[in-house]
Amino acid sequence: MSDKQPNQYLDESQHVGLVESLSYIHKDLFELENGQLDGFTLAYEAYGTLNEDGSNALLVCHALTGDHHAAGIRKDPRTEDLEQKPGWWNHVIGPGKAIDTNKFYVVCSNCLGACQGSTGPASLKPDQEEERYGMDFPEFTIHDMVHAQKKLLEHLGVQKLFAVVGGSMGGMQTLQWIVDYPSFVERGLVIAATPRHSAQTIAFNEVGRQAIRGDEAWNQGGYDTENGPTHGLGVARMMAHITYLSDLGMEKKFRQKPDCKQNEDLTKVVNSYLGYQAQKFIDRFDANTYLKLTSALDRFDLVGKRGLDDSLKGVLSKVLVIAFSSDWLYTPAQNQLVTESLHRLGKEASYLEIDHTHGHDSFLIGSEDFLRAVRVFFSGMDKKEEREQNLGRFRQVSSRYDVKKEADFKVIDEWVSKGQRVLDLGCGRGILLEYLRDSKQVQGLGVDFDRSKAISCIARGVSVYQQDIRHALANLPDDSFDWVIFSRMVEELPEPGAVILEALRVGKRVAVSFVNHAYWRNRLNFLRRGKRVQNEVYPHRWEQSGLRNHFSIEEFEQFCAESQGHGHSFEIGRKVFHQGDWVKHCTLMPNLRSGLAIYELIKA
Amino acid sequence: MSDKQPNQYLDESQHVGLVESLSYIHKDLFELENGQLDGFTLAYEAYGTLNEDGSNALLVCHALTGDHHAAGIRKDPRTEDLEQKPGWWNHVIGPGKAIDTNKFYVVCSNCLGACQGSTGPASLKPDQEEERYGMDFPEFTIHDMVHAQKKLLEHLGVQKLFAVVGGSMGGMQTLQWIVDYPSFVERGLVIAATPRHSAQTIAFNEVGRQAIRGDEAWNQGGYDTENGPTHGLGVARMMAHITYLSDLGMEKKFRQKPDCKQNEDLTKVVNSYLGYQAQKFIDRFDANTYLKLTSALDRFDLVGKRGLDDSLKGVLSKVLVIAFSSDWLYTPAQNQLVTESLHRLGKEASYLEIDHTHGHDSFLIGSEDFLRAVRVFFSGMDKKEEREQNLGRFRQVSSRYDVKKEADFKVIDEWVSKGQRVLDLGCGRGILLEYLRDSKQVQGLGVDFDRSKAISCIARGVSVYQQDIRHALANLPDDSFDWVIFSRMVEELPEPGAVILEALRVGKRVAVSFVNHAYWRNRLNFLRRGKRVQNEVYPHRWEQSGLRNHFSIEEFEQFCAESQGHGHSFEIGRKVFHQGDWVKHCTLMPNLRSGLAIYELIKA
Repeated sequence: MSDKQPNQYLDESQHVGLVESLSYIHKDLFELENGQLDGFTLAYEAYGTLNEDGSNALLVCHALTGDHHAAGIRKDPRTEDLEQKPGWWNHVIGPGKAIDTNKFYVVCSNCLGACQGSTGPASLKPDQEEERYGMDFPEFTIHDMVHAQKKLLEHLGVQKLFAVVGGSMGGMQTLQWIVDYPSFVERGLVIAATPRHSAQTIAFNEVGRQAIRGDEAWNQGGYDTENGPTHGLGVARMMAHITYLSDLGMEKKFRQKPDCKQNEDLTKVVNSYLGYQAQKFIDRFDANTYLKLTSALDRFDLVGKRGLDDSLKGVLSKVLVIAFSSDWLYTPAQNQLVTESLHRLGKEASYLEIDHTHGHDSFLIGSEDFLRAVRVFFSGMDKKEEREQNLGRFRQVSSRYDVKKEADFKVIDEWVSKGQRVLDLGCGRGILLEYLRDSKQVQGLGVDFDRSKAISCIARGVSVYQQDIRHALANLPDDSFDWVIFSRMVEELPEPGAVILEALRVGKRVAVSFVNHAYWRNRLNFLRRGKRVQNEVYPHRWEQSGLRNHFSIEEFEQFCAESQGHGHSFEIGRKVFHQGDWVKHCTLMPNLRSGLAIYELIKA
Repeated sequence: MSDKQPNQYLDESQHVGLVESLSYIHKDLFELENGQLDGFTLAYEAYGTLNEDGSNALLVCHALTGDHHAAGIRKDPRTEDLEQKPGWWNHVIGPGKAIDTNKFYVVCSNCLGACQGSTGPASLKPDQEEERYGMDFPEFTIHDMVHAQKKLLEHLGVQKLFAVVGGSMGGMQTLQWIVDYPSFVERGLVIAATPRHSAQTIAFNEVGRQAIRGDEAWNQGGYDTENGPTHGLGVARMMAHITYLSDLGMEKKFRQKPDCKQNEDLTKVVNSYLGYQAQKFIDRFDANTYLKLTSALDRFDLVGKRGLDDSLKGVLSKVLVIAFSSDWLYTPAQNQLVTESLHRLGKEASYLEIDHTHGHDSFLIGSEDFLRAVRVFFSGMDKKEEREQNLGRFRQVSSRYDVKKEADFKVIDEWVSKGQRVLDLGCGRGILLEYLRDSKQVQGLGVDFDRSKAISCIARGVSVYQQDIRHALANLPDDSFDWVIFSRMVEELPEPGAVILEALRVGKRVAVSFVNHAYWRNRLNFLRRGKRVQNEVYPHRWEQSGLRNHFSIEEFEQFCAESQGHGHSFEIGRKVFHQGDWVKHCTLMPNLRSGLAIYELIKA
């Protein structure tokens, strides 16, 4: 080590500290989807300690051009000096971090077929001293990568994975893991991935491959390592690099530089930035490996001929999919496909969309929401969060139903039976679903558009789809839930009638709770003052208020009757009316005397 | 001509028919921004007839790799056979089409610096028989292209352009035209363009250029025409081609093909499609020209050091900017920059966003909304549209103010003075602004989010920004309008108080008309029945209704008083109250007796 300042990454209270690259050598014949290998090596790193029953292991999968150095600081193998930069996910993995090495035994391997120490196209053929695989290397797949990682984990004594996590190609490996080894993986965290490449993504990869193959130095893959197709590889990298960023992110990055006000100057800066990226890549990556790896990505296809649901039907893991708003390579919509398929199949799956301007590469960059989501998915709420959220927690207030916010929860709680499937539309922080799960082993799914609330659901262990209610409902099969719940949220929907009828398609029963706008105090108040009452239920004056769609018990029943008349087969079951205090029950003249109504609609 | 079926494009009642490529030869020295040319040639086509005073000319500008063959059918110069395909905008230009050759004399030239007959890098140097310009060709600019086109138009006897129109690079030429020759151009139609390239666009171009320059055959630009850098040019084209499409558009295009269900097969199809595109391009385009043209695009920068407003401050043309929803190369936001600058400068400018899945290339493809927008911008409403729209036209009903829809228009009409500047938020089909313009020479700007309504505004000659009201207001300078009008649309805004105060920043006076929710019949109805009245004003029942934010006269006045208390300097000027019939005036107890209220707010 040199006599520099002590390296901050060596501080083991903050980081995983000094790490070294290890190798697992698999000596036996290894069957691939398209061919076989006469043994292979996987380079890997591991952080934290495997517990006695081998159940706290967490596998991290890297992206296309990443490697197994995910956290901590390494020595440069040539100089023995500490490297300048820590591993690529050092801000995520470490003691007390989102992936907590005090809790988890974290393993990251360079994937099979890559070129940072694992066996791939750039490796020497077995028992050869000079001849490399090159294009003779089999057309390996994401499945092969995962299969090889499984061998490594067995070697390390891992009995079961607490979780697999990865972004981009790492996310696809995660998907492959939960498909191939359902009972081995408890949780899967899929980040910025896709169940298959879109035509656009394939097209970009194809252009990159053509740039390499058209470079004369490529020589049908038979270049020698010192004289590879650097031009083609550089062009492929530069183009791909653009797809990892975003239009807005690039504007922010470059326009803030001095002397980049005019495009004439900006062009030079962009030119030199891309050239630098290309050179860094050429120095560390191999062209044939790039060809084979991008082909493996393009070939990855969980949709295929039989559809995504068929691929995912055996999944047993609890899944969280995280997408980034500005990711135009693996878009939020592509990520949603995974969650939606799992929901159709009745699996435990959640979806979050994190706001970030960095495009696809956002998963490599810390952001508060992202780190919180990762942490709570693996470790639940921390004590601070529990304190903050306890106030609103159903289990805390279940003896005080006078809290207006949850006045309808008691009724719904009574209606729902043990082990039923419940869809909560506008689920907020997941308080009701958490309670129903803990008290009645209900299988719940929440839908809420609010990211912060959705993350709180994850922290509670409640599955949530961060999505518009209409969009979420449209995905779900007929009769796939015992209950669909609208807890005081119909008022916030434009044209809510159609949504209620759609809920009746998805659920066997629908519970609708709403504020009865025809409550006598509202009427008198409006008669006298000509304006809406302002209280806990209507907290804002018109000029600060969001838009609403108030209705009354009578109007609701009229809607039900007319819908039935139009051929919608359901009937009104139980009804519960609360008085203006939302506590005492009300039986006489509810449209006049009731402040809160809760209806059960039963599909015929 | 061969003995094939009669070619449909020869039918001159439908198309411009047989066309031929003409050449304008400029013999004098021609100064460029960076250098000079010893004369130049422009290839061009022209359709229709120039009228006697030379005022019906319409210039069409082509995109990066386009040419002057915009419409009609040509003979192949080698075989003398008719070509298979008509010009690239044949569906837009022709007798009775959106650009009507019965009305307009339409000119399209291959731009200076291109390679389809005009002088550019692929041309022979003057007085040389073999030596081409190549990379010695000056670094020409969009300004130079426009300057050369001006010479052509002078040669053709054009005294003034009725309009310039172009998409993509053609849109940038259009922008340059209205900047460079403000009094020469009456109308500018800018389609899918940008005032300057974003960093991402520059980066894509830079990768394309590096692909060409890194191809050994490029030879510093000194290739001979038969052995150019076809590999590099092909890679550049394939990559650029992806940026002209969209993710969704490509999925639609490829997934519907037989045997493209699995990505393995799709990859082959995409590969062959890209290869085909590359080959077509290599056959017709020149690599040095591609380098110089893309550099001209990257260098084009109306924002520059001094800002877009400074570049556009001299514009006199009436401008329409059209963007496409799926265009991620020149995004809607980039197109909006142009309109917003013109609005800040108080110019006549409109913006439309057309829904289309084809990405940037949508401008080359017909769609009903697009063709209608182009047509009405150049020719106004046709008779059928006039008939359809007359019913709701203000000028028709100005004697029948009892039409509820326009009950507040009469009052606002009385308040607005001759020649004032009026911003109409939620302007609908532009009926009020058309009337105020015709009767009072008001300079109006409408804002409406609805595309169809916005196109109707264009047809009326009313400037319109198809945009969210908040977004549009935020762009406008303080005191830039004499009047800002909310005609019965505050009810549709969430948190409307802030929007009204923002309108008071932008306008000197604000007119707010609204349905008084405290009207006695509403009160009595609600008291008696506990639900909202259903009539012309509230046409839908709750379950089919959009969201609303009703308020009353008293509430509005309370909001004004409190805003004044919080330091917002304005006062309430005139107020007009209509009774429940929206006809008779109401003076006593308006909060109880009035159905419609119109307020004037005056900034101090």
